[in-house]
Amino acid sequence: MAGRTWLQQATPITFGLKAAGWLDALERSARRLRSRADEALVLQFGGASGTLAALGTDGPAVAEALAARLGLGVPAMPWHGHRDRLAAVACAMGLVCGTAGKIARDVALLGQTEVGEAFEAPAEGRGGSSTMPHKRNPVHASVALAAAARAPGLVATMLTAMPQEHERGLGGWQAEWETLPELIRLTAGAARATADALDGLAVDPVRMRGNLDLSHGLAMSESIAMALAPLVGKSQAHTLIERASRQAHVERRPLAEVLAEDPGVTRLIGRDEIARRLVPENYLGAARLFVDRVLAAHQRRRDTNG
Amino acid sequence: MAGRTWLQQATPITFGLKAAGWLDALERSARRLRSRADEALVLQFGGASGTLAALGTDGPAVAEALAARLGLGVPAMPWHGHRDRLAAVACAMGLVCGTAGKIARDVALLGQTEVGEAFEAPAEGRGGSSTMPHKRNPVHASVALAAAARAPGLVATMLTAMPQEHERGLGGWQAEWETLPELIRLTAGAARATADALDGLAVDPVRMRGNLDLSHGLAMSESIAMALAPLVGKSQAHTLIERASRQAHVERRPLAEVLAEDPGVTRLIGRDEIARRLVPENYLGAARLFVDRVLAAHQRRRDTNG
Amino acid sequence: MAGRTWLQQATPITFGLKAAGWLDALERSARRLRSRADEALVLQFGGASGTLAALGTDGPAVAEALAARLGLGVPAMPWHGHRDRLAAVACAMGLVCGTAGKIARDVALLGQTEVGEAFEAPAEGRGGSSTMPHKRNPVHASVALAAAARAPGLVATMLTAMPQEHERGLGGWQAEWETLPELIRLTAGAARATADALDGLAVDPVRMRGNLDLSHGLAMSESIAMALAPLVGKSQAHTLIERASRQAHVERRPLAEVLAEDPGVTRLIGRDEIARRLVPENYLGAARLFVDRVLAAHQRRRDTNG
Amino acid sequence: MAGRTWLQQATPITFGLKAAGWLDALERSARRLRSRADEALVLQFGGASGTLAALGTDGPAVAEALAARLGLGVPAMPWHGHRDRLAAVACAMGLVCGTAGKIARDVALLGQTEVGEAFEAPAEGRGGSSTMPHKRNPVHASVALAAAARAPGLVATMLTAMPQEHERGLGGWQAEWETLPELIRLTAGAARATADALDGLAVDPVRMRGNLDLSHGLAMSESIAMALAPLVGKSQAHTLIERASRQAHVERRPLAEVLAEDPGVTRLIGRDEIARRLVPENYLGAARLFVDRVLAAHQRRRDTNG
Repeated sequence: MAGRTWLQQATPITFGLKAAGWLDALERSARRLRSRADEALVLQFGGASGTLAALGTDGPAVAEALAARLGLGVPAMPWHGHRDRLAAVACAMGLVCGTAGKIARDVALLGQTEVGEAFEAPAEGRGGSSTMPHKRNPVHASVALAAAARAPGLVATMLTAMPQEHERGLGGWQAEWETLPELIRLTAGAARATADALDGLAVDPVRMRGNLDLSHGLAMSESIAMALAPLVGKSQAHTLIERASRQAHVERRPLAEVLAEDPGVTRLIGRDEIARRLVPENYLGAARLFVDRVLAAHQRRRDTNG
Repeated sequence: MAGRTWLQQATPITFGLKAAGWLDALERSARRLRSRADEALVLQFGGASGTLAALGTDGPAVAEALAARLGLGVPAMPWHGHRDRLAAVACAMGLVCGTAGKIARDVALLGQTEVGEAFEAPAEGRGGSSTMPHKRNPVHASVALAAAARAPGLVATMLTAMPQEHERGLGGWQAEWETLPELIRLTAGAARATADALDGLAVDPVRMRGNLDLSHGLAMSESIAMALAPLVGKSQAHTLIERASRQAHVERRPLAEVLAEDPGVTRLIGRDEIARRLVPENYLGAARLFVDRVLAAHQRRRDTNG
Repeated sequence: MAGRTWLQQATPITFGLKAAGWLDALERSARRLRSRADEALVLQFGGASGTLAALGTDGPAVAEALAARLGLGVPAMPWHGHRDRLAAVACAMGLVCGTAGKIARDVALLGQTEVGEAFEAPAEGRGGSSTMPHKRNPVHASVALAAAARAPGLVATMLTAMPQEHERGLGGWQAEWETLPELIRLTAGAARATADALDGLAVDPVRMRGNLDLSHGLAMSESIAMALAPLVGKSQAHTLIERASRQAHVERRPLAEVLAEDPGVTRLIGRDEIARRLVPENYLGAARLFVDRVLAAHQRRRDTNG
Repeated sequence: MAGRTWLQQATPITFGLKAAGWLDALERSARRLRSRADEALVLQFGGASGTLAALGTDGPAVAEALAARLGLGVPAMPWHGHRDRLAAVACAMGLVCGTAGKIARDVALLGQTEVGEAFEAPAEGRGGSSTMPHKRNPVHASVALAAAARAPGLVATMLTAMPQEHERGLGGWQAEWETLPELIRLTAGAARATADALDGLAVDPVRMRGNLDLSHGLAMSESIAMALAPLVGKSQAHTLIERASRQAHVERRPLAEVLAEDPGVTRLIGRDEIARRLVPENYLGAARLFVDRVLAAHQRRRDTNG
């Protein structure tokens, strides 16, 4: 399929590489969530001002017992006025939503009527129109994108609330009460929506391949340039390709054709070689290796976490 | 000194406990920064679409060599379209600013004309007024608080920018260019300002002690309640204390005096005991233990990091 | 051209209607900017605490004279501690950036390789690739979208900074210093980029028309449904259209063909009528009227403002 | 009472001036809310793509009738893809919350145990402690401050959501659904809390006056400087005041006393004049005028709005 930069077709990639990028990012999200949760799952128990004075000399022992009962860690000291642990959890949630939004954006763009390369599996009773069956609204993607649009503001609120007054703050503390639960709810929804968007994603390889021809081979010009550069130098290779590309673009003809007519090119590489190099499948670089690496890391993580 | 909740005096703490809370939070900030930096210091090198196709079969080897030269890790695959590593760095910065702001807020509040418990060391040519020498403006604290007010918006921008299109985004990518450097600059400034505010902080223990008397001992009522509860039950203890506290508050007399006149109380605990329990220094709970724990953890971290 | 909802083709619109929507929103942006600026262009002059006491009884007169000299209004009282006027200006800027981003998003999506309906005029030396002339990177749109991604965080900072302490705040005040100028700079850039993206926008009406055929007429099914409903009731009309639409979708045939073969339909409306109703140009509703209204309002505004 | 800048006492103000500043800002908030609401209360009615094609030629007439029925204005064209009207309402809400937070911050700081100048009327069953009756927790202020901490993130979300795709967006649109109602709810709560905090605010003029003496008259040094400047020039006046102020500060003696012992001062202005000028009540500048202006504007607005 086409790699796309600035919403314009660039050199080709495989769908597998795009999906591997999604998986790789989800793995990082999961790792961050676990790490931030570990850090936050510590007891907060300090009494009115954080000294446990009301418990006389029993304070620390009671704290230990309480933490054990709750399955929480025991911090060095009570932390009521320092909200960084919770804000860090919020950040990890925000990062999950951002990655969910990135995947959703890709899925939604691939499913545009004019692109048609991948579609969400239709949800029961949602996302379609009975009289417009060509419409395959990316409803799961919209949920993830909405979460990605909302999470930054909620994370910002948690960070804004951090400078709280003395041993118990005023306003900042209360601002967390609805914000963190909402953010957790939103993140869970984004994770669910991402899974729903990808489960049963309908991929159309014919359309992916067909769209590559929309540029008449121009997206493949780098491949020829790389072949010419060792023979005539980068600068001259560039000049040759630029000329042919402009001609192909203006005349709306395949780049292969234009190149094959240019003696300045054909004296350097044959027409078969030109044709071969303009086949997108022959210009995928390390895509397969990258996919394998991501899958291997994923498998290792699954093996480790049981 | 007074512990303070909702900007009102509560049970006493030590200044050491407050400062230990600051140190504990700074340690967490430093740990997070290192962890996020480790995660982000990986090579991004993928060519136009992330396949390294222009390098033929040499792509991965070139990537390895380049990463080695730059002292960066090699990721499983190029990550140009996935910005979570950078957004996670931004989050860690935001958390540092939040903690700096929390410390600064405490310092600024302690230095109010009416509180007068701690002041920033005057900066050369700043923060004072030649004709109003009583004014000791917390200029370093203001820098940290400004950073804490600005960082959340910048972090939000980095999160907002995450859902980028395909292999290279449009708008989101560009939004990072000025935001992340500004956030790093801001965080460095907040860290510097925090150090400046705390280096040579002028602490006034006499004023700290004096302010504790502003409530006529009412902030210590919990101490008496805890002594009475085992003798007459929590409910009856509460009733006795509530009555005496209201009387002391209305008559603006020391709680000790009122309690000492109340036979319902003095038949349970003697006047000496009442007096002893109303001394703030006798009601500090585990404050010292908590300080020791934080200092020990700090020392361990310093030993480990060389 | 296709109207598009959820990134899927829906019923047709005209390009003029889309552009009128852009203009209408820009008019609102301009109106808001002027209104907020008027509100904010008032003198702030109050001395140390806002009483002008240092000027004895001359304070108000000096304030009047100063405001006159600066071309500013005179407020009822000094407002150093109340930052709402500046925050309101920031909001107006944020709204401009949001509208610029909306227009830029539309432009960038229209210019995708697979859509190809409208392109930014190439900027000198930017946005193109000499060897990939099919690539017409929407560079101006990216500037506007980046501004739209960054502005919300900066606006949030200005709002966050509002609750400032007493007669001059600490941290909040300082947080404004770099934020508001940056936001103004960003807004000016977004406005410039919007103008650059639209000046000389290359519109491809052939491609717009061609893309409408991608759905084989299914995007026009509503048009037939509206014709059938008065004849057989909404429910029966819906059933007929749904059946035909599914068939056309599955068999990848034009909806017109399928309908023309369905006696249940042709006994109600003739083939010519079916064909006529499936022509997008015949199903544009009030598009022209709406465009005229927006243009008239624009002209009125220009006439008024000279 | 003391004017306060950087949380330090500066030259005196009246409590009326502070309250007038609150009122003035609330008036602006109310005006903005009404103006934004007027702008937003227009019909959105456009059918699938905004052309009203499904209504044939009746679209505009139906829109007029619908708007009339709903009491809404009729816009130049449907605006489903342009969200600026709603985002502008969100901004106005954010500004209300910011002003509520500013007032609440002042109230909370005035009510600190060590300041004691003004307290919220105790809410039934909230804000107090039966055994710590000196504690008068500013519970209403905390609600307003929490709203002021949360609103900026929600406003940012509404702005972030603005660049929506084509005729109906994906993600951005959905992000508004919970955000705007939450923001409205929050703003209503902040308005209510502000009213509750100010209704029956207990003001302690004795404490206000007493706190002015905490600086031993140093906060009044500007008053003497202004008297000396016309007699010996600004520079010399400054030198005299600076010397006396430092001496008063170091020796913790009243500035009046130190000045009265300085022949360099007393040859210029007599001891009575020194004493008179150091009385805070004599150094209030235009405070009363400013209060009258704000009240007059408030009355005009009430008269106008019925």
